[in-house]
Amino acid sequence: MMEDVKLFGLWASPFTQRVVWALKLKGVSYEYVGEDLVNKSNLLLQYNPIHKKVPVLVHNGKPIAESMLILEYIDETWPQFPLLPQNAYHRSNVRFWSKFIDEKTIDMMKFFRYDGELQKRAMEETWETLKVIENESGLGEKRFMSGNNTIGLADLALGWVAHTLVAMEDVLGVKFITPHHFPYLQSWMQNFLQVPTIKHNLPPHHQTLDYFKGKRDMFLGMMTQPYCHHH
Amino acid sequence: MMEDVKLFGLWASPFTQRVVWALKLKGVSYEYVGEDLVNKSNLLLQYNPIHKKVPVLVHNGKPIAESMLILEYIDETWPQFPLLPQNAYHRSNVRFWSKFIDEKTIDMMKFFRYDGELQKRAMEETWETLKVIENESGLGEKRFMSGNNTIGLADLALGWVAHTLVAMEDVLGVKFITPHHFPYLQSWMQNFLQVPTIKHNLPPHHQTLDYFKGKRDMFLGMMTQPYCHHH
Repeated sequence: MMEDVKLFGLWASPFTQRVVWALKLKGVSYEYVGEDLVNKSNLLLQYNPIHKKVPVLVHNGKPIAESMLILEYIDETWPQFPLLPQNAYHRSNVRFWSKFIDEKTIDMMKFFRYDGELQKRAMEETWETLKVIENESGLGEKRFMSGNNTIGLADLALGWVAHTLVAMEDVLGVKFITPHHFPYLQSWMQNFLQVPTIKHNLPPHHQTLDYFKGKRDMFLGMMTQPYCHHH
Repeated sequence: MMEDVKLFGLWASPFTQRVVWALKLKGVSYEYVGEDLVNKSNLLLQYNPIHKKVPVLVHNGKPIAESMLILEYIDETWPQFPLLPQNAYHRSNVRFWSKFIDEKTIDMMKFFRYDGELQKRAMEETWETLKVIENESGLGEKRFMSGNNTIGLADLALGWVAHTLVAMEDVLGVKFITPHHFPYLQSWMQNFLQVPTIKHNLPPHHQTLDYFKGKRDMFLGMMTQPYCHHH
């Protein structure tokens, strides 16, 4: 049967990138459909009427939304390069950290939207979340979030930290993950970025940097309008 | 091998009840350990150090937290009475609604904490969420959230609506799910409550009612202290 796989996404979106990496790790060919978030396509709204968000994977005409559920679908549909361990207990552990990271992702990026006191508080929150991952996920005893040998679901969930967070840090001139404060996360970042499929499927740093410089200018513009503080 | 299954929970918790139902549907024997939420046991804190919440399933000494991940673990460990369909696309659909319901559960209960304008707004939110489930989940074309023949993951996620929400409604003298406004959800509630394993593993209504009357009095007491409005 001819496979028809389409990914509706935004290249700079951490949620889209998870799916790109999973499809590349599996060696699944797909057509990429770039979405414009200020002018979403009718197809996207039709495929994801509840959340109206990227990414959406469309496999033989059938849409799947929510990045982590797309990864589970991909893993069940194309078994090569498993994203979850075989053992049910290890699976539940990888899913636990995937869920934790997924739920914290938007909040962890909040510092990039704000200034002043709000930014300070948001940065503390990001720091606390990174500390939980650093100290509680067992990252000190394994090379990857999903196990010692290979990346998996939880690494794809966290992947944005290794380059999107870095671009946000560069724009603001701050630094969360240093070898001194986050030795395990620092090692994980290096290990993750050395995986060939990841290395070859990252947007160029300067392109990500330009994108987030533009985003930051937009947020600063919004912050001059007091009602937008409530975002 | 001798199975050792323990469930740390709270009988009135919608999240605990999901796990109880799943274990009963699978026919898995377990020891129930009731937790006191104002004085959590050291074991609970040790088993779920990140979220410090019930339910926690402990299988042969290994803890699993987060109710929806516990259900996935149970489904993978004890294959009898599958909670997910076999087909990967149908699985992703059931997981989508399970996630949607799970993420909305706490917010849907907010109206029960508040009074006045805050309560009005919270009730509108609960109504909107129920409308999404009523109109978008395909409930008009099937008996259960997880398919036409049998309950599954999404039904267990939504199960609290069929009796905990009803108890909250009774305490406040309001009614969300009526045959006129929510015909599909109304039918689903009836179908769900007729499943023998569910029917025989519900706390008695008067017990749930007493519990939430007590909760309501507690919330009202907190609301007389202005700083608690920020909860």
